Amino acid sequence: MAKEILYLKIAHIIQEQILSETLKIGDKLPSIRALQKLYNVSINTVKQAFLELESKSLIESRPKSGFYVSKTSNRKFSIPSMNKLKVSESQKSPDDLITKVFDTFSDKSITQFSLGVPHKSLLPIAKLNKGIIKAMRNLEESGTDYNLVQGNLNLRRNLAKWSLVLEGKLTEDDFVTTSGAMNAIYSCLMVTTQRGDTIAIESPVYFGILQIAKSLGLNVIELPTHPTTGVDLDALKKVIHKVKVCCFMSNFSNPLGSLMPDESKMELVRMLTYHNIPLIEDDLYGNLFFGAERPKPCKFYDEAGIVMWCGSVSKTLAPGYRVGWVAPGLFKEKIIRQKLVQTISTPSLYQEVVADFMEFGRYDHHLRNFRHTLHTNCLNFQRAVEDYFPENTKISQPQGGSFLWLELDKSIDTVSLYDIAIKQKISFAPGRIFTQLNQYNNCMRLNFALEWNDKLDADLKRLGTIVKNAL
Amino acid sequence: MAKEILYLKIAHIIQEQILSETLKIGDKLPSIRALQKLYNVSINTVKQAFLELESKSLIESRPKSGFYVSKTSNRKFSIPSMNKLKVSESQKSPDDLITKVFDTFSDKSITQFSLGVPHKSLLPIAKLNKGIIKAMRNLEESGTDYNLVQGNLNLRRNLAKWSLVLEGKLTEDDFVTTSGAMNAIYSCLMVTTQRGDTIAIESPVYFGILQIAKSLGLNVIELPTHPTTGVDLDALKKVIHKVKVCCFMSNFSNPLGSLMPDESKMELVRMLTYHNIPLIEDDLYGNLFFGAERPKPCKFYDEAGIVMWCGSVSKTLAPGYRVGWVAPGLFKEKIIRQKLVQTISTPSLYQEVVADFMEFGRYDHHLRNFRHTLHTNCLNFQRAVEDYFPENTKISQPQGGSFLWLELDKSIDTVSLYDIAIKQKISFAPGRIFTQLNQYNNCMRLNFALEWNDKLDADLKRLGTIVKNAL
Repeated sequence: MAKEILYLKIAHIIQEQILSETLKIGDKLPSIRALQKLYNVSINTVKQAFLELESKSLIESRPKSGFYVSKTSNRKFSIPSMNKLKVSESQKSPDDLITKVFDTFSDKSITQFSLGVPHKSLLPIAKLNKGIIKAMRNLEESGTDYNLVQGNLNLRRNLAKWSLVLEGKLTEDDFVTTSGAMNAIYSCLMVTTQRGDTIAIESPVYFGILQIAKSLGLNVIELPTHPTTGVDLDALKKVIHKVKVCCFMSNFSNPLGSLMPDESKMELVRMLTYHNIPLIEDDLYGNLFFGAERPKPCKFYDEAGIVMWCGSVSKTLAPGYRVGWVAPGLFKEKIIRQKLVQTISTPSLYQEVVADFMEFGRYDHHLRNFRHTLHTNCLNFQRAVEDYFPENTKISQPQGGSFLWLELDKSIDTVSLYDIAIKQKISFAPGRIFTQLNQYNNCMRLNFALEWNDKLDADLKRLGTIVKNAL
Repeated sequence: MAKEILYLKIAHIIQEQILSETLKIGDKLPSIRALQKLYNVSINTVKQAFLELESKSLIESRPKSGFYVSKTSNRKFSIPSMNKLKVSESQKSPDDLITKVFDTFSDKSITQFSLGVPHKSLLPIAKLNKGIIKAMRNLEESGTDYNLVQGNLNLRRNLAKWSLVLEGKLTEDDFVTTSGAMNAIYSCLMVTTQRGDTIAIESPVYFGILQIAKSLGLNVIELPTHPTTGVDLDALKKVIHKVKVCCFMSNFSNPLGSLMPDESKMELVRMLTYHNIPLIEDDLYGNLFFGAERPKPCKFYDEAGIVMWCGSVSKTLAPGYRVGWVAPGLFKEKIIRQKLVQTISTPSLYQEVVADFMEFGRYDHHLRNFRHTLHTNCLNFQRAVEDYFPENTKISQPQGGSFLWLELDKSIDTVSLYDIAIKQKISFAPGRIFTQLNQYNNCMRLNFALEWNDKLDADLKRLGTIVKNAL
């Protein structure tokens, strides 16, 4: 058999196994060496077969791990549409709806597709508990004393070491620790804005930003945001004269999962530097990439110090620890002062636990497994939606993070749908909570950082049926 | 011997022992029964002798403990003077001086009379550590999950149970937990004021309030405050039309240690209710009373819900835990919303530790010992100042808390004095950090929540010499 026919034949065999679901989404393929022996061919032939399958998006390589079934070539549903810039429209805060949706968060009988936090089964709780006991013993005065206002030194050192993506541009002195990323964003807005100022945000946007803006008396401009490539910079250009601060999630935004390409990040930083507009970059999903490497944050391109790079472990280790940070560039002294007047210092114990987790490689190890699980879950969720939801459903294609964004038929109102679903013990986040305008009423966000099993599959099926019945 | 002469004779013997320092300040007297046997007299005779000594302030009774040497009758130094209302004077924030004084706080070679936190030897660290391990095991998901925004239910329950001084007026639902009392005050000001508003505060005042006010763009009116009876209500009346919010420490204020009498508290609440002005009551020293019972907070007299009662365990258990709370009356929903946008929730672990400490009587037990130590330290500090400082020194007479306020000769500048003292490894808080006006330059605050020993006595002697040399 000619070599080119040989590799195609092998590719075909594997393709059949995938389409027949003998190999399922997220399954690992046998190693190149194993297949070489199995088919008695050269390593190059197997590699060519894999390339063929990869070009069809049937499989994908994951760094340092191997090849996995992805089956995205069979994607039936298109990605959601992008909204238009609407600056004059009347705004209405979704506060009541947010309260309604999250009032049920502690009800364990409900399948919580609505939440923005990972399921406990995905968290390394036992290892963290060991860390608590170790930190308690190591900390001077067992952590009963005030910490430095700027934050635990051990954590800041590890943040600097571990921010490899920034290629050594940050030191321990560049970080200020905070009470989660929400607190970092709140403090950034406190030091850069005053009541009545206007900030530019993505749309749809993480509703916490809307809540902070309302609380601080800030106006928001919701910029059109592409489900894949993020915020529309042309739209930003049009309104930039009105904007005091930008607040974006450049990597795997919540809820769209969009990822700004490097060129866009560079252009954004260039534009904001020129206009002297600070960028609050909420990068708390940046480590949850499905691709080969961690995407760079805008902070990487920031020479002038206008980017305030925010992060946390709330989406990767423990939301309840409230450990976050910001590298605030030019605004460092103001942020430290803001933290001082808010609370003097943050507790050192959990900061020490996280620092220790980072220092001894446990965080890296955990993140590798966690990303793998998230990626597989994402593919499973996409498959389930394609199987169970109406044909005209549109679905996002995140390259990281933990959310899917669904756009349903225009006739569907997901706020009403929520009431029906919750009676069936299923919770999702209605699109309307991610905007101050009257839009996304036919959209929903699903959290896939859950433990995948038949129950979850069945729940997605039930949710699909609820949508179909609403049509 | 006639009975009346007998009791006077016994009183005289004890008085001689006190004046010759055979019995030292803070020493416990033998029990009534022991003295009855010793002198072969009736119990009543001993009681009369104690009454005689108490009337001379040579001894004092401490609830559930007995009688102790206090020797306040021999007080040589008068109490500090009260300042006047100055509303038009130009204001200058003491920020740089505060930074300078507290930059040395982690230097263990310095005797830190400047700090506002108890020395670690006075804290029940081992018991707290046991509590951490217990809480970690008991908490659902080991505390990795978000807590309720309003705060840990167990802590709020114990706060309600344990607020005996309020005679059952508060329930678990009336409290919101915060990240220390500083955070409680910050949040209270966030929900009741806007940039440019004016707040009324004590003078001298805890400098943290000045820092928050500056950060939030608030104007302050410093009200004259009596070292013993607290804020001058007549002065408040004169400026009340300008005031948006009041922020007072009604019990054992920092730095004066003043205690508002019940009648003043009632009048204050009546006045503020009439004018519909909220009162932020910082009551974090209220449990550190030297007298027979805990003084009531203004909250006790608050029928309209205008008092936002703030507290914490930072001055009694562990500053670094950042566990505080507020019973915000009418402003509860706004405070919860403010906490949500600041940080979503506060970590549950330490809240659970404090709740457990309260629930099983450990807190009560600790407070009894702690108060006893503070009271004895206070007497020792007063005695040392009277022995070592210049004759014209004035010294406060706190009835609780952990601070002494000293007013020195008018020619003394405690800011310059600070530089001299720090070279001799002694730190104190210069009066100027407790005001925005150009005053208290000849004053200083001393923290007596330290471990009393010969070294401390010698350090106070050295400080007294530094003052004498500056004259």
